[in-house]
Amino acid sequence: MLYANIETAVIADDSVPWIPFAPYSDTVMVKYFKLDPIRGEVVAMLKAPASTVLPRHYHSGTVIVYTIQGEWKYQEHDWVATPGSIVYETAASSHTPQASDSAGDVVALNIVSGDLVYLDENDKVIAIENWKTALERYLAYCKANGITPRDLTAFK
Amino acid sequence: MLYANIETAVIADDSVPWIPFAPYSDTVMVKYFKLDPIRGEVVAMLKAPASTVLPRHYHSGTVIVYTIQGEWKYQEHDWVATPGSIVYETAASSHTPQASDSAGDVVALNIVSGDLVYLDENDKVIAIENWKTALERYLAYCKANGITPRDLTAFK
Amino acid sequence: MLYANIETAVIADDSVPWIPFAPYSDTVMVKYFKLDPIRGEVVAMLKAPASTVLPRHYHSGTVIVYTIQGEWKYQEHDWVATPGSIVYETAASSHTPQASDSAGDVVALNIVSGDLVYLDENDKVIAIENWKTALERYLAYCKANGITPRDLTAFK
Amino acid sequence: MLYANIETAVIADDSVPWIPFAPYSDTVMVKYFKLDPIRGEVVAMLKAPASTVLPRHYHSGTVIVYTIQGEWKYQEHDWVATPGSIVYETAASSHTPQASDSAGDVVALNIVSGDLVYLDENDKVIAIENWKTALERYLAYCKANGITPRDLTAFK
Repeated sequence: MLYANIETAVIADDSVPWIPFAPYSDTVMVKYFKLDPIRGEVVAMLKAPASTVLPRHYHSGTVIVYTIQGEWKYQEHDWVATPGSIVYETAASSHTPQASDSAGDVVALNIVSGDLVYLDENDKVIAIENWKTALERYLAYCKANGITPRDLTAFK
Repeated sequence: MLYANIETAVIADDSVPWIPFAPYSDTVMVKYFKLDPIRGEVVAMLKAPASTVLPRHYHSGTVIVYTIQGEWKYQEHDWVATPGSIVYETAASSHTPQASDSAGDVVALNIVSGDLVYLDENDKVIAIENWKTALERYLAYCKANGITPRDLTAFK
Repeated sequence: MLYANIETAVIADDSVPWIPFAPYSDTVMVKYFKLDPIRGEVVAMLKAPASTVLPRHYHSGTVIVYTIQGEWKYQEHDWVATPGSIVYETAASSHTPQASDSAGDVVALNIVSGDLVYLDENDKVIAIENWKTALERYLAYCKANGITPRDLTAFK
Repeated sequence: MLYANIETAVIADDSVPWIPFAPYSDTVMVKYFKLDPIRGEVVAMLKAPASTVLPRHYHSGTVIVYTIQGEWKYQEHDWVATPGSIVYETAASSHTPQASDSAGDVVALNIVSGDLVYLDENDKVIAIENWKTALERYLAYCKANGITPRDLTAFK
């Protein structure tokens, strides 16, 4: 039974690689910790150079962002996320992330429920990211770099 | 504080209307009970005539379907959902709903987390439904029919 | 990898048994459809004779109740849940369920997140129910009645 | 309508205080960022001196722990959580947290779904923590220290 293969576990920082967030950027890196194939939750670290602007997007569910380093904002909001802050994003809200020019690389932990939907200026869908595309990116990176992949979709 | 406006409550069957599921269908009807503006959860009843085929789609999160009446299947699966059954859909799985020809109208309760994404035959996004589009459909229907809307986004 | 064992599936009404909700009651019956060993979600049908009063309790997360038959209320609220209604319970709210005297058996679908905590009149914990106690009750019932159990903890 | 009061927002690190995790400990401190009165989710930072042992407990839902500083383990598991790691705890699993003797204060971000249930050696419930007890602790601390409380239960 499935429950016999479920238990609390740790994923160490150095047990998962930084991966280029292609095709969206060559300089933004992502590190996946957990890809839930049932609920669609993704736990991932994101690293972006100062001044990076990422495409406007929304999430189908909530997102919790814990900023570790650097400063960033959404162009649609006045607030700035600084180290140690929590950003709580509600379902289907759209925004354009922008790293500050003068606070160094942004490093932030993201707990994402469901799809990340990239939109163009007319609100047309450009691309969708979720646990499946994350898994494909992770497995392709592992294969290309001779890394034995972990099962990031498992809970043990 | 928000918590002072949150409490367990009932939404009676006749307190919310059946609404045509336009522009996807003139004969499929939907009745919204709850539209969660934080997590993106939608609780809705769906009613479709026998033989209805709905477009292929996926959901960004889970879906729980309780079938009350009629029979239906996904063209991609062998099983048939009959009255009293529970279908548990996992995140980002895609499928094409089809009501049986000979078991009458399908009526089913749906608890949906996040986006419903309609796809064409090349997996291109045709349309996205979520708590926001549901709210717009509900408010437009209420306005057109002289109904005072409930706050389906509230928890009280 | 786990994701290869996850897919959308049906649990038919007659594939899972009605089980006495012992030790809380001999006349209340429960039918489990899904017991999520990761998130702790329980999908279950409950059947209670007219006039049944169940102990006061709260849930650690949300509960969605769809009433199929009969009428019931919480002694702490004025509203009555009638067939076709949705009750949406918010986290950590406590209440005492009571089936109406004159509307027959109550049958209701429950989607429960996390623990169900029974309290005495001084708010002391009497008992806790969750996916684990539900699984034990289901497996014990199957064993005692010569039924081969399904894996209600799996998503396939 | 509620949705008009819901939007993506930041909670800055210095906008919420460190609070003693009384009555469980005088030296363990907690900083609450978000207390979800609907789903029961708590987002909180925890700080514990080296060598701290906390009581055995379980959570009714999932917990995600991101360790920022220090090292800790559960006495029931072999692994050690080090800085940068993610611990993913599944529903209703119980364990006894222990900070390492030689790695300094532990600081860790916790995203907790539902109740935290403290158990004695006979699995009897000693105490339960959730969004309500967290809110009471926060409001009492603010009052005692002349701090104007934020609405940690709101999503804006």
